[in-house]
Amino acid sequence: MGGKMKAVVKHHQGYGAQLQMVEIPQINEDEVLIKVKATSICGTDVHIYKWDEWSQSRVKPPYIFGHEFSGEVVQKGNKVTNVEIGDSVSAETHIVCGKCQQCLTGRAHICKHTKIIGVDTQGCFAEYVALPSANLWKNPKEMPFDIASIQEPMGNAVHTVLSGEVIGKTVAIIGCGPIGMMAVGVAKAAGAAQVIAIDLNDYRLNLAKEMGATRIINSNKENPLEVVEFLTGGNGVDVVCEMSGHPVAMNHGFKMVTNGGRVSILSLPLRPVEVDVTNNIVFKGITVQGITGRKMFESWQQVSALIHSGQINTRPIITHHFSLEEFEKGFDLMIEGNCGKVVLQP
Amino acid sequence: MGGKMKAVVKHHQGYGAQLQMVEIPQINEDEVLIKVKATSICGTDVHIYKWDEWSQSRVKPPYIFGHEFSGEVVQKGNKVTNVEIGDSVSAETHIVCGKCQQCLTGRAHICKHTKIIGVDTQGCFAEYVALPSANLWKNPKEMPFDIASIQEPMGNAVHTVLSGEVIGKTVAIIGCGPIGMMAVGVAKAAGAAQVIAIDLNDYRLNLAKEMGATRIINSNKENPLEVVEFLTGGNGVDVVCEMSGHPVAMNHGFKMVTNGGRVSILSLPLRPVEVDVTNNIVFKGITVQGITGRKMFESWQQVSALIHSGQINTRPIITHHFSLEEFEKGFDLMIEGNCGKVVLQP
Amino acid sequence: MGGKMKAVVKHHQGYGAQLQMVEIPQINEDEVLIKVKATSICGTDVHIYKWDEWSQSRVKPPYIFGHEFSGEVVQKGNKVTNVEIGDSVSAETHIVCGKCQQCLTGRAHICKHTKIIGVDTQGCFAEYVALPSANLWKNPKEMPFDIASIQEPMGNAVHTVLSGEVIGKTVAIIGCGPIGMMAVGVAKAAGAAQVIAIDLNDYRLNLAKEMGATRIINSNKENPLEVVEFLTGGNGVDVVCEMSGHPVAMNHGFKMVTNGGRVSILSLPLRPVEVDVTNNIVFKGITVQGITGRKMFESWQQVSALIHSGQINTRPIITHHFSLEEFEKGFDLMIEGNCGKVVLQP
Amino acid sequence: MGGKMKAVVKHHQGYGAQLQMVEIPQINEDEVLIKVKATSICGTDVHIYKWDEWSQSRVKPPYIFGHEFSGEVVQKGNKVTNVEIGDSVSAETHIVCGKCQQCLTGRAHICKHTKIIGVDTQGCFAEYVALPSANLWKNPKEMPFDIASIQEPMGNAVHTVLSGEVIGKTVAIIGCGPIGMMAVGVAKAAGAAQVIAIDLNDYRLNLAKEMGATRIINSNKENPLEVVEFLTGGNGVDVVCEMSGHPVAMNHGFKMVTNGGRVSILSLPLRPVEVDVTNNIVFKGITVQGITGRKMFESWQQVSALIHSGQINTRPIITHHFSLEEFEKGFDLMIEGNCGKVVLQP
Repeated sequence: MGGKMKAVVKHHQGYGAQLQMVEIPQINEDEVLIKVKATSICGTDVHIYKWDEWSQSRVKPPYIFGHEFSGEVVQKGNKVTNVEIGDSVSAETHIVCGKCQQCLTGRAHICKHTKIIGVDTQGCFAEYVALPSANLWKNPKEMPFDIASIQEPMGNAVHTVLSGEVIGKTVAIIGCGPIGMMAVGVAKAAGAAQVIAIDLNDYRLNLAKEMGATRIINSNKENPLEVVEFLTGGNGVDVVCEMSGHPVAMNHGFKMVTNGGRVSILSLPLRPVEVDVTNNIVFKGITVQGITGRKMFESWQQVSALIHSGQINTRPIITHHFSLEEFEKGFDLMIEGNCGKVVLQP
Repeated sequence: MGGKMKAVVKHHQGYGAQLQMVEIPQINEDEVLIKVKATSICGTDVHIYKWDEWSQSRVKPPYIFGHEFSGEVVQKGNKVTNVEIGDSVSAETHIVCGKCQQCLTGRAHICKHTKIIGVDTQGCFAEYVALPSANLWKNPKEMPFDIASIQEPMGNAVHTVLSGEVIGKTVAIIGCGPIGMMAVGVAKAAGAAQVIAIDLNDYRLNLAKEMGATRIINSNKENPLEVVEFLTGGNGVDVVCEMSGHPVAMNHGFKMVTNGGRVSILSLPLRPVEVDVTNNIVFKGITVQGITGRKMFESWQQVSALIHSGQINTRPIITHHFSLEEFEKGFDLMIEGNCGKVVLQP
Repeated sequence: MGGKMKAVVKHHQGYGAQLQMVEIPQINEDEVLIKVKATSICGTDVHIYKWDEWSQSRVKPPYIFGHEFSGEVVQKGNKVTNVEIGDSVSAETHIVCGKCQQCLTGRAHICKHTKIIGVDTQGCFAEYVALPSANLWKNPKEMPFDIASIQEPMGNAVHTVLSGEVIGKTVAIIGCGPIGMMAVGVAKAAGAAQVIAIDLNDYRLNLAKEMGATRIINSNKENPLEVVEFLTGGNGVDVVCEMSGHPVAMNHGFKMVTNGGRVSILSLPLRPVEVDVTNNIVFKGITVQGITGRKMFESWQQVSALIHSGQINTRPIITHHFSLEEFEKGFDLMIEGNCGKVVLQP
Repeated sequence: MGGKMKAVVKHHQGYGAQLQMVEIPQINEDEVLIKVKATSICGTDVHIYKWDEWSQSRVKPPYIFGHEFSGEVVQKGNKVTNVEIGDSVSAETHIVCGKCQQCLTGRAHICKHTKIIGVDTQGCFAEYVALPSANLWKNPKEMPFDIASIQEPMGNAVHTVLSGEVIGKTVAIIGCGPIGMMAVGVAKAAGAAQVIAIDLNDYRLNLAKEMGATRIINSNKENPLEVVEFLTGGNGVDVVCEMSGHPVAMNHGFKMVTNGGRVSILSLPLRPVEVDVTNNIVFKGITVQGITGRKMFESWQQVSALIHSGQINTRPIITHHFSLEEFEKGFDLMIEGNCGKVVLQP
């Protein structure tokens, strides 16, 4: 195709990013060029923007970051058969090896040699992005581009909530950032009897309520263990989705879960966590699951079906839209925290 | 307690039943006496009422029939510890042996020595019923008695629909009698993307629609295979719940299910059914499940939670209320078919 | 590479096949050329050889048939990264689309657009075979080539037996052709308490015994239902693996399985089968599974690990070795039936 | 029955126990009197014998301790229907409430109101023991009494190893006390490709080898992480059964498990354990399971079937037999550690 395009570039080894004019990427025969219609900011992007410890050790500026998006296929390599020019697509962010034991047994989301789009490769905060066709997910034509863009993090929520039974159960969502809010909606759509949302931020708790939480708890104002005890008649919750990453909150999760319950952890605590294995895991006979990525592509299919069928209304989660040029407003909001999902439109 | 009570008695080996005054039953130390507040008519009761081939071979008049109910505990044996006088209860209808391999491994619903309340023992079409305490299920105080009475058949619906994954999937319910209608509601509450209800009776299809069916198909007017093909983009449905018992409809189910799908059968075809095992089971790699009874008491817990939380509104399913004395009106309606659930109030 | 090679060609639309000199196949950049070291005869090959109804409707002579093999990589396309020159490999026989709902959710073995090597494409009854790299499975260097060749059908056995719990259970294998014999070994290795092998052929039953069957039943000499009743204390078997394809034997399976048991069907009955759905599926609450192909590549991994670790000794199953030129002897033996697996060595 | 019997009584709040003559217990109508034929010493009994912190807070001397046994039914209450006089029986040690959410949903092993035989009630270190009939498990007549006695701890091993897939997988058993040794045998019988046994005691490691370990590691002499890395070609083990209770060993388990693997914990660390949740649970996408007790009675059925069928030979695990009077020798051995299971014969 050729020519120039606008892109948000992580330009140096420090705070911030820069809007630049760069070459439109070339594709090889297994790849597809996509005109980006909407791209949303992930917590990972904020880490990179702020240039924290993790991003210093992982990413190599200058490069284009960003990995959540939707767009239109404008060019395809001659070996690509799964999409057509004009299709609306999003993409799985994990580029996997296809050869390890995990990939060979249908569990590519835990591939040992994963590369992540917008972290290890060029990303989608741009007018165009080139991607391997194997990573693409086709969207229904009717799905708005901003909604389609947030399917990737919603895939994390779906993966976490649905990694065990939910229907008729009591579910606690600890940590109500955008993925926590989505998890509330997923638990509700999956038939949970109670969905208890826990956070420290009232703005986010109110969004969780809008997504269907039957009870919200601000841990600064109420003791979540006492409230849960009351709400469950002393039994505890059946399922905990830990999305806060905070060791105290995580241990609240281990305490509030009932015997035989499930604790699914998507969050990434900064340091090792002290856990009362004997009393909170063994005697209770619970299951603890580490959750990473999205099942490829079962989680995507669930996300698409839940949105497309109207079982989940994700509209409340997208609280802000900006042009690509206004990316700094988006990052400022994300850092401050009083927002749901922030979408940039190139 | 002593004294007399009204009861609907299967009094002779022929069509119909009779309202009689009989002794209030005595309880032993493991049993409970319940004042019946609501009792609903099951298809099985209609078989007994009509004195069909099956009932002639199974039940022994004179006796009180009926097995779906809710009521209040008025007396308890001195070994009973799981309920208190005044509790609102319903009951699991299977009285199981507790000793067979199935009972000893948590699968009492397929006990090889099951006796059924109101079939093999005295039933609940009466002012009082005496039951083993092990069969009781406690209802929330707030649950209306008529709703509480239909939990037993709803347990069948829950058991059928939830015997595999539902969320984000396309589910076909074949046969929309009361349990089929309930199954529609369960599939919807469990997050199904599409719920396709199939029957020959428009009255029942309309109730299925009210329960959340995304599409209803009257097989007399439309070809269900063609409609399903269209609705699923040629892929077929993920889940079939077969509740019609008709061999043609059952084979429609086997044909419309997609590769790797599930066919859960609750219905009881009168005769052996010819099945294209090679093309519709083996090559497709599907799973076929026979469903009987309710998981004890997992299905009850799910039913109670789904109703109590409001995830399912069962109100539309109960279309008629009569006094116990008017039982014949109820049976006439059930035989005719233009009804949902019929509740008798002693 | 170029040059000529020997190959067993299905040369005409009639009985038999012919050894011919043909071109060594060319590979493209995603493919691999393999020097075949051992190739075994499958029942499907016998159908093609005999030119039965099914093969007349499916295959298009002239072409090279055969799909079970092991061999050495001698040439690879420049996009191939999962194998190296000199690797010992076998291959999954299903060439799948990668785009359908089934492929996208980790269930490629039930892809709706599968092509089968040696049926729909050129096969491996030859000195060389060219295959897509995505279908290859790497063998441990120590694995003998004849054993490595029979991994493909053993994958069917593993897929069938292990599609549910086996340990401590009583398993009946109905039909003891080569895959049935393998299934006996898999059930035994998986910890089955009893493995009951049923067939009409004593030669094959004796091989089943050698593979670990705790009891063999020749249905011409004993009533399998009575023997099973005795062996299980009246309870019935927990698992049936149906590999006979005969409607009477299949219905024996449905009758002998206990309440809550499992019937996994790998066989392909020629015509629809009459099944007593009410008594043998619904009231019993059993699960019936259609099994096709091998889980890609979970089944391969299980097969490889079971053979390599010595948990299964597959040696007794390979009863005959011939050179490729002697293929007619192999087919004659397979048609007659008094053999296990027959291996051809090019 | 009446009369006196010998019993090992925890007679005071301090070290040791005493052989005393006490009343033979009376039974009520739901109970059974059993003549104890063999009773084995559990680690819990050693805690009580040594009068450690835990036992000081839990048990109330004087009382008879001990909970693993087999024996013969000599008297039964008139409501007992599951066993007959003369039957050989063992018993599940958890006396459960039958009313909590866990009991009502087939998960009585995690009942919130469990009482334990020999801890909270009179135990079996005696000539006779009286028990609720609901706790009994019938043994095959052919099973030797000493073997039958160790089924209870073997139920723990079975519950731990079989709480996920094993066949064809690599399993590490960390901690090779008697239950660890049994776990080795269970993993082997369940078709594990490799069973790696890890401990500090060579005597016990040698017993683990005899039970089928494919590799033993004395952590004092070899680095288990390095050995596992080598044995698994860098992939790590699929399953860890943690039975040591030591925080360093437990973290070795978390490190050596592969992505998507399983860590099942039966041990009871004395203090909270620091776990690298982010790197060892979340990014790896593993499952951690707390294991307590035995599934009632699925685990018992598995144990009985595995022993009775010869799939596991438990004989090597029982290293010592003493008379009941020699109980002190047994406890001394257990404290010292160079033994497998120690059986007392009244």
